[in-house]
Amino acid sequence: MASSNDGDKKSISAYGAARSTVQPEKPLSPEEIRKIDAYFQASLYLCLGMLYLRDNPLLREPLKPEHIKARILGHWGSDAGQSFTWIHANRLIKKYGLDVLYISGPGHGAPGILSQSYLEGVYTEVYPDKTQDEDGMRGFFKQFSFPGGIGSHATPETPGSIHEGGELGYSISHAFGTVFDHPDLITVAVVGDGEAETGPLATSWHSTKFLNPVTDGAVLPVLHLNGYKINNPTILARISHEELTSLFCGYGWTPYFVEGSDRPSMHEAMAATIEHCILEIKKIQQQARAAKKAFRPRWPMIILRTPKGWTAPKDVDGHKLEGFWRAHQVPITNVATNPSHLKLLDSWMRSYKPEELFDKNGRLISELRALAPEGNARISANPVGNGGILRKPLDMPDFRQYTFPEIEAGVTTAGSMTNMAKFMRDVIAMNGTSFRLFGPDETESNKLGEVYKASKKVWLGEYFDEDQDGGNLATEGRVMEMLSEHTVEGWMEGYVLSGRHGVLNSYEPFIHIIDSMVNQHCKWLEKCLEVEWRAKVASLNILLTATVWRQDHNGFTHQDPGFLDVVANKSPEVVRIYLPPDGNCLLSVMDHCLRSVNYVNVIVADKQEHIQFLGPEDAIQHCTKGAGIWDWASNDQGCETDIVFASCGDVATHEALAAAALIREYLPFLAVRFVNVVDLFRLISESQHPHGMSDREWKSLFTVDKPIIFNFHSYPWLVHRMTYKRPGQHNLHVRGYREKGNIDTPFELAIRNQTDRYSLAIEAIDRIPSLGNTASSVREKFIRLRLSASSAAYENGIDPEHIRNWRWPFPIRE
Amino acid sequence: MASSNDGDKKSISAYGAARSTVQPEKPLSPEEIRKIDAYFQASLYLCLGMLYLRDNPLLREPLKPEHIKARILGHWGSDAGQSFTWIHANRLIKKYGLDVLYISGPGHGAPGILSQSYLEGVYTEVYPDKTQDEDGMRGFFKQFSFPGGIGSHATPETPGSIHEGGELGYSISHAFGTVFDHPDLITVAVVGDGEAETGPLATSWHSTKFLNPVTDGAVLPVLHLNGYKINNPTILARISHEELTSLFCGYGWTPYFVEGSDRPSMHEAMAATIEHCILEIKKIQQQARAAKKAFRPRWPMIILRTPKGWTAPKDVDGHKLEGFWRAHQVPITNVATNPSHLKLLDSWMRSYKPEELFDKNGRLISELRALAPEGNARISANPVGNGGILRKPLDMPDFRQYTFPEIEAGVTTAGSMTNMAKFMRDVIAMNGTSFRLFGPDETESNKLGEVYKASKKVWLGEYFDEDQDGGNLATEGRVMEMLSEHTVEGWMEGYVLSGRHGVLNSYEPFIHIIDSMVNQHCKWLEKCLEVEWRAKVASLNILLTATVWRQDHNGFTHQDPGFLDVVANKSPEVVRIYLPPDGNCLLSVMDHCLRSVNYVNVIVADKQEHIQFLGPEDAIQHCTKGAGIWDWASNDQGCETDIVFASCGDVATHEALAAAALIREYLPFLAVRFVNVVDLFRLISESQHPHGMSDREWKSLFTVDKPIIFNFHSYPWLVHRMTYKRPGQHNLHVRGYREKGNIDTPFELAIRNQTDRYSLAIEAIDRIPSLGNTASSVREKFIRLRLSASSAAYENGIDPEHIRNWRWPFPIRE
Repeated sequence: MASSNDGDKKSISAYGAARSTVQPEKPLSPEEIRKIDAYFQASLYLCLGMLYLRDNPLLREPLKPEHIKARILGHWGSDAGQSFTWIHANRLIKKYGLDVLYISGPGHGAPGILSQSYLEGVYTEVYPDKTQDEDGMRGFFKQFSFPGGIGSHATPETPGSIHEGGELGYSISHAFGTVFDHPDLITVAVVGDGEAETGPLATSWHSTKFLNPVTDGAVLPVLHLNGYKINNPTILARISHEELTSLFCGYGWTPYFVEGSDRPSMHEAMAATIEHCILEIKKIQQQARAAKKAFRPRWPMIILRTPKGWTAPKDVDGHKLEGFWRAHQVPITNVATNPSHLKLLDSWMRSYKPEELFDKNGRLISELRALAPEGNARISANPVGNGGILRKPLDMPDFRQYTFPEIEAGVTTAGSMTNMAKFMRDVIAMNGTSFRLFGPDETESNKLGEVYKASKKVWLGEYFDEDQDGGNLATEGRVMEMLSEHTVEGWMEGYVLSGRHGVLNSYEPFIHIIDSMVNQHCKWLEKCLEVEWRAKVASLNILLTATVWRQDHNGFTHQDPGFLDVVANKSPEVVRIYLPPDGNCLLSVMDHCLRSVNYVNVIVADKQEHIQFLGPEDAIQHCTKGAGIWDWASNDQGCETDIVFASCGDVATHEALAAAALIREYLPFLAVRFVNVVDLFRLISESQHPHGMSDREWKSLFTVDKPIIFNFHSYPWLVHRMTYKRPGQHNLHVRGYREKGNIDTPFELAIRNQTDRYSLAIEAIDRIPSLGNTASSVREKFIRLRLSASSAAYENGIDPEHIRNWRWPFPIRE
Repeated sequence: MASSNDGDKKSISAYGAARSTVQPEKPLSPEEIRKIDAYFQASLYLCLGMLYLRDNPLLREPLKPEHIKARILGHWGSDAGQSFTWIHANRLIKKYGLDVLYISGPGHGAPGILSQSYLEGVYTEVYPDKTQDEDGMRGFFKQFSFPGGIGSHATPETPGSIHEGGELGYSISHAFGTVFDHPDLITVAVVGDGEAETGPLATSWHSTKFLNPVTDGAVLPVLHLNGYKINNPTILARISHEELTSLFCGYGWTPYFVEGSDRPSMHEAMAATIEHCILEIKKIQQQARAAKKAFRPRWPMIILRTPKGWTAPKDVDGHKLEGFWRAHQVPITNVATNPSHLKLLDSWMRSYKPEELFDKNGRLISELRALAPEGNARISANPVGNGGILRKPLDMPDFRQYTFPEIEAGVTTAGSMTNMAKFMRDVIAMNGTSFRLFGPDETESNKLGEVYKASKKVWLGEYFDEDQDGGNLATEGRVMEMLSEHTVEGWMEGYVLSGRHGVLNSYEPFIHIIDSMVNQHCKWLEKCLEVEWRAKVASLNILLTATVWRQDHNGFTHQDPGFLDVVANKSPEVVRIYLPPDGNCLLSVMDHCLRSVNYVNVIVADKQEHIQFLGPEDAIQHCTKGAGIWDWASNDQGCETDIVFASCGDVATHEALAAAALIREYLPFLAVRFVNVVDLFRLISESQHPHGMSDREWKSLFTVDKPIIFNFHSYPWLVHRMTYKRPGQHNLHVRGYREKGNIDTPFELAIRNQTDRYSLAIEAIDRIPSLGNTASSVREKFIRLRLSASSAAYENGIDPEHIRNWRWPFPIRE
């Protein structure tokens, strides 16, 4: 019964001379230490400048209140550790000609990153007004966390960044995404110890089981234990050395510690350690590549323990500052009003000796400039950090080759997803190193198993003999599955942002797990539109299946189509939602999505066998329009429409069509129109979304004065919120999932939510005023038919044959 | 450079004689082994019966197709391991008089649980028609995964369950939630190795840093390595023994392995191991309790490795079944149509020897019945599993004591959250062991720091000297903070479901991280309403602050008020959303929520200083109504209203009120009405939500023919989707967050989204047709005022004084 509280507390202090796993045997000359530390100080000086100054950037005169920003914003906590890591990576880039990307995990650590980009000259190249002189520095300082300026994260405006980190938890999965199929890339991922407590981060350490040392690059994590979050100690900084080591060995890494606060010895320790890790990575890769045999090594990682807010004053007004949570954000808040605090800031900033670091014009002195790599070897200039410029369009097979050529509308049945899988298989085959298919564990369950003919699932865990029997595992492959929606989504984001392409396939009900990640990716894409130098990246394609209407057997917990509501809240410039009604439409939509850029595309399609509606050309035309009248299902040609049935979603279309057939069979004198919507944003006004339709188009599809029975895949309110301003919107009656479910048959689930054919037909009768009582016997008939189908299902456990195998249009009777 | 692939593969086989860390020295007599194994077989027999049979439950005759369900649903994969664990827990409950709850982590493992409840008689007590005889067993089998029956998870219908597990990842955090402040409880949490890959589960192992061995109970995790997910091996089953041990030691546990497939030796190994773990838990607790000194031990846990689908046939048609992913769901699918498969099932079921386990009536034989505990000691009868019956209302201070007594409406300013914190402090003080306040790391940042006067933050990690300086840490406390929204939410759910009370405080933008968890909790609550014997639990209270309108400085990533859209999709019976406009309303709402049961209450309130509007009695009255006209801000008394300003949300109210003041100042001849909404669901129709208002009420508040300028806290479409049917809805113009943000001042952020006072006032002018051109100069004036405020902010980095400190109603001019 060991207690970790019994451990030696001194062993985990962040203070003092460096202590490290790798023993530094003078990796740096005193002169090198001096220069590296000077560069470090230059970067820290810039960090403080960004937080505080709107003027007097080089401290040519003593600080006065008017030099200070009116609202001081930003975070100091992780800046030093991040600068420190970046600078030491620089040394090795130069020494070994490395290709390095940097990911900033800790929240609000942008000053540490921005300062580097400015020092290595990239910032000035990208933003020419931020010159390498006093004026440029003044502007560089002022814009930080300032209205109209840039944020305190590594936002899209930050050169070299693919990871804003506004929300925590995704640094490691993003980093892995960047190195898949980039065999020469090493991504240094700094992980905050706050971030490390999040679930997504905690499981993403397992990504090593999916990294191939032959064909992929490497991630070098630097877990930055600075000990505190906003207002709490961090867990990983308050467990014993032994537990910490165990944890990361267990995750499959070899952790190397660098701990302390004494700058010279810390430089030596970090220089030796990061070099050791890089050489270990190289050795692993060489071994695997020489033998052309992938294996899973224990990859090296660094645990860097420094005081929070390292290099800040030890205390302010008797309260501990450096090494405590008070150094998390703005370390001294009231400098404009408290003269002694202003003085403290002044002397703190001067302690970095700006006059020795920058020349008389304000430019970093040349001996320090020489420490940075050159050209694209500079981390902040790495093209991977602006992945869109590396993106090549996918080699695409002609999707028409995969379509169902002969469709009897409403009669032919086939598996839309199974068929689309062939298209996906060939996309994979034709794009060996620039496309991957991601999913939590459901590619086979989602009827996409055909893809394994082109490529297997990546697996660097252990192999058993039984894997030969349909395991579909390989050390190299295009399909990536781990039971963590967070991790696979993070991988895909990193993969796409670094210039490649991907599709995530997932069960619809559990995609809410990554609501927040998708939100953040949408925000990233939207901001990129405002950043001129950012090249567009491939769209993030999310294919949702195992949808609500076929989750009857899994029950209520597996029924939630509300991801669409979350996505629909994002900027219209970056989100697209498609609900293809059948197989040919699914192909057309997938083809479109895979060719698109800068969107989050959400495609919702069921994986079971379904009735098909449109032949290849009709499907293409329908998907291009996004919404349209299905003439073959309508009988209002040349006369006044009595009722409009509309649908969006495959199962919804099936029932709406059956309802239309019921009305046409039992009330043949009525003129019925059938409208299908593929592209959800067609419903919205053209002024609200680029895909929106005009009111004129709306009227031509839906009429202005006829009842519309709209059967929708998801929650019905989503349609209402999109259409509340449409002419005749009071005639629009939307049916969809109303959060009613249990263990049911598919048809019973529909009945519970009033989306079944009978309920829709009854609704239609009720909404046609001219019918009066003429249809009352038909109405009662429908009620009886509904009850009888329901009773049969409860008795037998399955829906009656005439429900399961109904096809357009007749016979519909039981 | 160690490679885990070099490890000894045989060491991690799931087959063969048991291998275990604890060496079993005959913990069971042969007779005990025989009986335990018979009980195990009885449970496995029931599991198969649930999956397959609708008739012939005792196999009195050879299986025929008509005995088989038409649609075979359910999962076999984890059933054996779960039954096994439960049965061995039973032995120790009897031996030591333990108080044990069981949590079923693996997906779809309900048969393993349901069979136990049936065998120990609880199922029949709860559902008297499921008798302990052939008829009862037939009904028990048939209802499983059958229309109108019960699901394949541990749904609310399952006696003893507080954890459905339809979505994976929360078993450990739920388990910890149940044992906080339940010092005698041991919750056995079976974790699937698929589930273990999820982020939420991966970080929840750290919960030990928040468990006090003196005042809390204990969690005994059983990580069930059965090796496969739906279609993939699991990560943790494919790493070396050494890594696995390391990982859990690193997480702070002592793992004890039990591995194999040979039943007799596995019974011995499990019996010895679980007993060892229980004794270790007892020893830890005794040591801590005797010394009255909490510490963090390495808590014991079990790693149980068995073949997936353990005890199934080795193969079917030459394909491996037991121990492979094919055993995940229904192990043999086409028994009704394939006679040889039917025969295989028949002989498989008979291999458990039902004729020896059940007497001639179909009741479990008495010597086996005697193995189960009795009364509430039976796991499935544990009152904690129906926590509502343990729930006592909170001891509540009178919230009126905390109200701001003297309010000059629209003039007084104060910190609503800071003030409410005093109320929360006393709720904590008065409810020592039945209330906890949860949050990721933001209680202090959210201005709730006052609570530390009543109780500190629980922390069982290491302590440093500096913690004395405002650390607010203690081994015992009511405040729980870990930087994992998933974990704190999971703890709170477990705490509330086991009969206690809680509040989660969190930043609004990142609450989307737990969208899916909250969805699942809503679904649980809603289903509980249909289960008669379930007593109602306390509401899950989610207090959101650091809201979108005050996240200007953190930028776009921190701006997302869309959690409300997600919650509003859930069943009206279980969700409530409140946006109190000021401090007294916040108190009234919090008081209401803390007294309520069976809801998810979402309260959105900013944490900064704000203008106050309502005195105590007015606030109570306003909150009771949920929405109302603010007479003091209106001047349409006794005349026809020209324009209605409405608001929902504190910042939204502030700007809407300023807009009303602008109109009244510049166009004093207009009759202005001001409406505020606290309870969001008031907007919806009474037929859609219990809090909905009638159209008559709607008209009396909003009129049917006057323009309504509605300033909303969140995305504007949410209001439209709630009101699209209201009379006069075409007059409703909603402004809210439109996904426009950056580093801005608060006012500039409002301008971007057209929710600022000037934009609202301009909108009002545009919407009053009678104004014609008479107000055009005022309109232009407002545009100028808006531009000037904006320019000043861009110049200085803060909003101008007259914007920041505007109060109702005059002077409003700059």
